[in-house]
Amino acid sequence: MAAKKKISLEEMADRLIAGDRRMAARLITMAENRSDKVGPLMKLIYPRIGGAVVIGLTGSGGSGKSTLIDRLIEAFRGRALKVGVVAVDPSSPFSGGALLGDRIRFQRHSIDEGVFLRSMGSRGYLGGVGRATSDVVRIMEAMGLDVIIVETLGAGQDEVDIFHIAQTCLLLLTPGMGDDIQTMKAGIMEIAHLIVLNKADLAGAESCLRSLEAMVQIAGSERGDGWTPRVLSTVACGERAGEARGIEELVESILAHQDYLHDSRTFEAVQAKRVEQELGLIFKDEMEKIVFAGLKGTGRKRAYIEDIMAGRNDPYSVVDEVLKEFLVREKSDE
Amino acid sequence: MAAKKKISLEEMADRLIAGDRRMAARLITMAENRSDKVGPLMKLIYPRIGGAVVIGLTGSGGSGKSTLIDRLIEAFRGRALKVGVVAVDPSSPFSGGALLGDRIRFQRHSIDEGVFLRSMGSRGYLGGVGRATSDVVRIMEAMGLDVIIVETLGAGQDEVDIFHIAQTCLLLLTPGMGDDIQTMKAGIMEIAHLIVLNKADLAGAESCLRSLEAMVQIAGSERGDGWTPRVLSTVACGERAGEARGIEELVESILAHQDYLHDSRTFEAVQAKRVEQELGLIFKDEMEKIVFAGLKGTGRKRAYIEDIMAGRNDPYSVVDEVLKEFLVREKSDE
Repeated sequence: MAAKKKISLEEMADRLIAGDRRMAARLITMAENRSDKVGPLMKLIYPRIGGAVVIGLTGSGGSGKSTLIDRLIEAFRGRALKVGVVAVDPSSPFSGGALLGDRIRFQRHSIDEGVFLRSMGSRGYLGGVGRATSDVVRIMEAMGLDVIIVETLGAGQDEVDIFHIAQTCLLLLTPGMGDDIQTMKAGIMEIAHLIVLNKADLAGAESCLRSLEAMVQIAGSERGDGWTPRVLSTVACGERAGEARGIEELVESILAHQDYLHDSRTFEAVQAKRVEQELGLIFKDEMEKIVFAGLKGTGRKRAYIEDIMAGRNDPYSVVDEVLKEFLVREKSDE
Repeated sequence: MAAKKKISLEEMADRLIAGDRRMAARLITMAENRSDKVGPLMKLIYPRIGGAVVIGLTGSGGSGKSTLIDRLIEAFRGRALKVGVVAVDPSSPFSGGALLGDRIRFQRHSIDEGVFLRSMGSRGYLGGVGRATSDVVRIMEAMGLDVIIVETLGAGQDEVDIFHIAQTCLLLLTPGMGDDIQTMKAGIMEIAHLIVLNKADLAGAESCLRSLEAMVQIAGSERGDGWTPRVLSTVACGERAGEARGIEELVESILAHQDYLHDSRTFEAVQAKRVEQELGLIFKDEMEKIVFAGLKGTGRKRAYIEDIMAGRNDPYSVVDEVLKEFLVREKSDE
């Protein structure tokens, strides 16, 4: 471990950019732990990133995300593209290099040098999982991966934040989710570019497809990007890839959406939005660090909490007081 | 609408504290919209709050949360306690006074003056749903409700944040969720005080109960609060309350946990933790407002984003630069 310290940040960045997988894993751990080195490191690698296709994939438990990703990895590898996967499960307290549970099936790809996998839980990330995921995707971009799939579970605010990192967003559903879809996924529906009905060999798939298409008509009219979401059906399961259905069409649709982004010049707008979100996440994180560092060790935080609990003060007044101390000015004239 | 403006903040606070339901609804909407009046208002009502039993309830879709809450409302009303419910669904873009979908069944309580209901979606809350929920619970406490139930869906970071608002946390499960529980709910398992197996009349309930009890043994040893989580079984469904099972035992267990909190003097620690979280949420929100207000309208944000996209700058350097401008000092010596 002592040897690690001898490497300069510049050398670390160079190794990452050269595609060094162990360095990537190490830097991702640094990013997850919000090491002080992350900022300087990101400054070094930032000029080298931005070329990857970033795909967001969300769907409930049981919708077959892992299996579909497995098929997508195969399809992209078949096109000689290097693939990264970030599996984010905000309900899991676990994180790290190993993929958990049924994701174990991905492990057969782990000996392929063209595939890089990482799973993330929700806890222990100062600044939230959104911030950490954003950094991890940036690191994967810097190491030269061509396609990065960001997988999330469910549809909370975390997931919506994470979805904004991606250029092409896939929502995975299954027949039988029925009426729940309408209310459950309303937020994600408006963001998704491709709606994928997986397990399309199950009963009810046809009517489910039809109602999805109807929903897309309605939701599509409210979109600002001019893209009409496509509804696709897949069967990702089966031990052998040959038993899968609809995967090539899905890959084609992903690439079609990418083409659309570039042709319609909305790609720049998508990238700008991502940078804006990234700025917001970093801002919040850094501000928090500074104010908390200022209160730490002084016993002031403890004293404030005691005052509030005793009714001598309230949280809003405390925040006013502390912020006045830390901020030069409040530009109230703008 | 013009008449509303004539009421002073002091009068609004007084009416809330007197239990005025329409004023409560209006102030909650203000809190959701992050009106500038929220801070001053909270300063007025803060000395009057803190007496309510706050219960957190989480569980996946289909676990029967709405029906169980319906039964709990009945049970608490039977004890002449006033009950508030905040239903938070971070996946729903909807919010406001009306409870949605199957929650319509709550509406029969809406003519009961001792019951106050509110549903919240995830979007449109500056500062996040956690911050908004915290304020809404405070407003409900100020209006004199005795028991406040905060219902959340799923188990993302939002839900964990929301759970920290509650003193007594319930995790609702059903038989047949099987092996998923272990990974899905790991984060919540460690926070929950009562694990409720609902729909306990379904097949597999017995073995599910046994494995939950085994899990609680393991998770319980890692808890810092000394409380051993209880595992309970309920049957909340059925049109009439008489068909329900286990509700009284659940209410008794909630009250037993409250007694434990008070007897073990951990109640103070729980309240302190909530105040600490509240402080953190308000801090983040206020800092964001100030920095964003400072950048707004100057065209600087746009220019920064363009520079980043052109590779002339990076987000980390931008944040450094802007923060240096807004912050008096960084207390690096502590």
